[in-house]
Amino acid sequence: MSTSPAGLFPVPGSKAELEEGTVLSPRFGPEGLITCVTTDAATGEILMVAHMNAAALAKTIETGEAWYWSRSRGELWHKGATSGQIQTVKEMRVDCDQDALLLKVQVAGDGGCCHTGRRSCFYRRIETSGDEPRLVID
Amino acid sequence: MSTSPAGLFPVPGSKAELEEGTVLSPRFGPEGLITCVTTDAATGEILMVAHMNAAALAKTIETGEAWYWSRSRGELWHKGATSGQIQTVKEMRVDCDQDALLLKVQVAGDGGCCHTGRRSCFYRRIETSGDEPRLVID
Repeated sequence: MSTSPAGLFPVPGSKAELEEGTVLSPRFGPEGLITCVTTDAATGEILMVAHMNAAALAKTIETGEAWYWSRSRGELWHKGATSGQIQTVKEMRVDCDQDALLLKVQVAGDGGCCHTGRRSCFYRRIETSGDEPRLVID
Repeated sequence: MSTSPAGLFPVPGSKAELEEGTVLSPRFGPEGLITCVTTDAATGEILMVAHMNAAALAKTIETGEAWYWSRSRGELWHKGATSGQIQTVKEMRVDCDQDALLLKVQVAGDGGCCHTGRRSCFYRRIETSGDEPRLVID
């Protein structure tokens, strides 16, 4: 079985294999990244959206803790390594065409996730009732 | 206030404005796209991950129904226009650095979302207990 450029995952096969198969063959984008949605395993709350490269995904699978690729810092990012907000993976899922991942996690430390101090990065609602959309914290 | 290339949304401002401000200034990526996570408003289930360009986001805000940008077809995509699985937006949220959106929707038609016929695109769990990760439908 041939593997991806990083040599860590099989190269994506046919549409049928991608959608109905049992082989994890993530479709990394042009920058070598795949989108990952992370939720709180207990509450289902959406905590964050981040990206993984092949190495981050392999580390996540190997360690059972969430690793991402930090696009701003250009480096592997063991979430919580400095903040204590380690994310222990309770479940991982992949979508139909294997270009998005879903992590259900339990957060250690103070239970937070967002660098602003909030529990979730999605702390603002888009209010669309007026002339212009407006952000509301609620 | 200056606007994005497409002229539909303000250009992102400072980090403080992005993170704590009330102005929606989405940070579209190099391809002009922003990631959107869509959940079932009633159950919280994650239905899909897709992308919007500025026009799709503007149409979503204007109509109250989800519009995406289809990367495979290279065109605006009114979700459900052919399948009947129209997504009525109950809530929209944006993340801390405004490069991801969250839509909470009510799905019309048969209530499905995924083109494979499933309700959610995330119908496979990644089983990591063996030597190699394996996909399980459950």
